[in-house]
Amino acid sequence: MKLLRYGPVGQEKPGLLDATGTLRDLSTVVPDISSSSLSPAGLDKLKSLDPKALKAVAGNPRIGPCVTGVGKFICIGLNYSDHAAETGATVPPEPIIFMKATSAITGPNDDVIIPKNSEKTDWEVELGVVIGSVARYVSEADAMKHVAGYCLINDVSERAFQTERHGQWTKGKSADSFGPIGPWLVTADEIPDPQDLPMFCDINGKRFQNGSTKTMVYGVRYLISYLSQFMSLQPGDIISTGTPPGVGMGQKPPLYLKDGDKIHLGIAGLGEQHQTARNYKG
Amino acid sequence: MKLLRYGPVGQEKPGLLDATGTLRDLSTVVPDISSSSLSPAGLDKLKSLDPKALKAVAGNPRIGPCVTGVGKFICIGLNYSDHAAETGATVPPEPIIFMKATSAITGPNDDVIIPKNSEKTDWEVELGVVIGSVARYVSEADAMKHVAGYCLINDVSERAFQTERHGQWTKGKSADSFGPIGPWLVTADEIPDPQDLPMFCDINGKRFQNGSTKTMVYGVRYLISYLSQFMSLQPGDIISTGTPPGVGMGQKPPLYLKDGDKIHLGIAGLGEQHQTARNYKG
Repeated sequence: MKLLRYGPVGQEKPGLLDATGTLRDLSTVVPDISSSSLSPAGLDKLKSLDPKALKAVAGNPRIGPCVTGVGKFICIGLNYSDHAAETGATVPPEPIIFMKATSAITGPNDDVIIPKNSEKTDWEVELGVVIGSVARYVSEADAMKHVAGYCLINDVSERAFQTERHGQWTKGKSADSFGPIGPWLVTADEIPDPQDLPMFCDINGKRFQNGSTKTMVYGVRYLISYLSQFMSLQPGDIISTGTPPGVGMGQKPPLYLKDGDKIHLGIAGLGEQHQTARNYKG
Repeated sequence: MKLLRYGPVGQEKPGLLDATGTLRDLSTVVPDISSSSLSPAGLDKLKSLDPKALKAVAGNPRIGPCVTGVGKFICIGLNYSDHAAETGATVPPEPIIFMKATSAITGPNDDVIIPKNSEKTDWEVELGVVIGSVARYVSEADAMKHVAGYCLINDVSERAFQTERHGQWTKGKSADSFGPIGPWLVTADEIPDPQDLPMFCDINGKRFQNGSTKTMVYGVRYLISYLSQFMSLQPGDIISTGTPPGVGMGQKPPLYLKDGDKIHLGIAGLGEQHQTARNYKG
C-alpha cells in the first residue's frame, strides 16, 4: 500500500495510490497519515479497504510530506562505508545518531531552500523507516514488527553549519526544507528486503549517488533495536538511515547546490523526488 | 500567568494557577496548552479571562508536562562557563546545539527512570524557553517577541551514552523521562529579566547546583536569534538553555543517580520539581 498526502502546504489530505497509479482520497476514512493511522490496527483498517470504492482525486495536486505529526526525525551518520571514506571519516564502531528538526520536513518535490549565509548545501539520498508502534528495548528479532513502512528522504545538509560551527551536526541538518519525505509511505509488506534497494541521486541530470541499501553498515533491523536502547521509538517517528557515496562534499573539488540546480533522487519501490534548489528570499 | 497541565499521564487537561494558588480548569476554554494556545492571540485570550470564573480543580492531581505537542526540544550545551570548566570543556565560540527526543518529556514530579545499562545518569537544572510564534532569521532586537513563556527543566543526561558511545550527544539525552518540564509555563510578562533567575538542584537534600541565569554565556535573546539562523523556531518548541555548575559528572569523584535518589530543583518564579530516580523495570 502506498500512502501519501496531497494538497497545498498545511492543508494536505490523506490519500492512497492504487495499483493502477490512481490517487484516491482517504480523508473520509482517516483524518491524516500520522501516528494513529500507522499503528498495526490503523494499517489493517486501510488495507481492508477496496481502493476502487474511494473517490479518485482529480487533477495533479502537489504531493506533501507522506507523514505528519512526526515526533522525532532521527538520522544515522556515516552508515555506508564508502560514504564515510569520502567524507574523510572512518566507520564508527556504533551507529552515530543525530536529530533533524521536524520543521525541516517538506514535500518530495518542494523547493530546497539554500539558507542565508550558506555556501555548502549538499544532498543525501536516504532510506527512511517510519515507525508504527512503540519500540522500547526491542531485540533485533522483534525490531521489524515496529516498522509501518518506508519512504524516500533527501537528508539535505549544510556542511559548514554541520561541522565548522562548533557542534552538533543538528545545526547543519535542520533548515526549513532540508527534509523532503515521500512521495509515498510504502507499507512494510511491499518491501520484503529493505537491505536490497537500489538508490540514486542526480544533480542537473548527472548521476552523483548510485548505491544500494545493501552496503549499509548497520541495517534497519539493527538500527531499530539499537536506537530503542537509548530512547523509545514512537508511531510516526522517522529514522533516516544514512547515505551512500556521491555527496557534494565528497567531490574533488567539493560541489554544492546553487540557485536553480535540479535535484532528482529515488529508491526502488519508494518513488522519486524532484527538487529545485533556491536561494532563501526573506 | 501560570499555565499547566494536570491529570493522569496522557489524559492531561489544561489549567491555570491563579494568584491565590488555586488550580483552575481551562479545558472549556482551550483544548490543551500547545502551539495554538501559545500564540500571541492565544495568550491574549487566556489573559483576558477572569480566573475566578473558571472552575477550581478539586483534590491534588498529578501535574503533567506544562506544554504538549512540542515539535522540537532544542538544547544548548556548555552554556555556563563554570559548568564547561567542570566537565573539562572550554566555552565554545558559538552555542552548541543538540536535540533531546520529544518522547523524553514527562511531568515535573514523575519518576526519572535510569535506563537499562546506565551507570552515569546525571541531573541538570535548566531554564526552558517556550516559543509562541514562528521565528526565522530574527534579530536580537526582535527575538523576545517570539517567547511565549518560560519553564523549569531537568535536562537529565546519561554521560556514557552522551560521550562514550560514538556520537552524538542526543544519544545520552533522550531516554524516556529524561525531560521533566514544568510545573508551569510562566508567561513572559511575569519574567521581566530571564537573565537574573536564581536556580538550584539538590540531590537527597544536599545542594549540588546553586547558580543563576546571570552567568549564562549566551543569553535567551541571543540564542533565539542564533538558532533562527539555522532552523525555524515554531510555536510550542522548547529551548533548554544549559546548566550551571554542580552536575554529577563534575564531582570528584563523579556521582550519578541511583535507584531511590531524590532530586529537587527549582528556578525563581518558575516553581520546583521533585523526582525520584528509579531503575528501569521492563
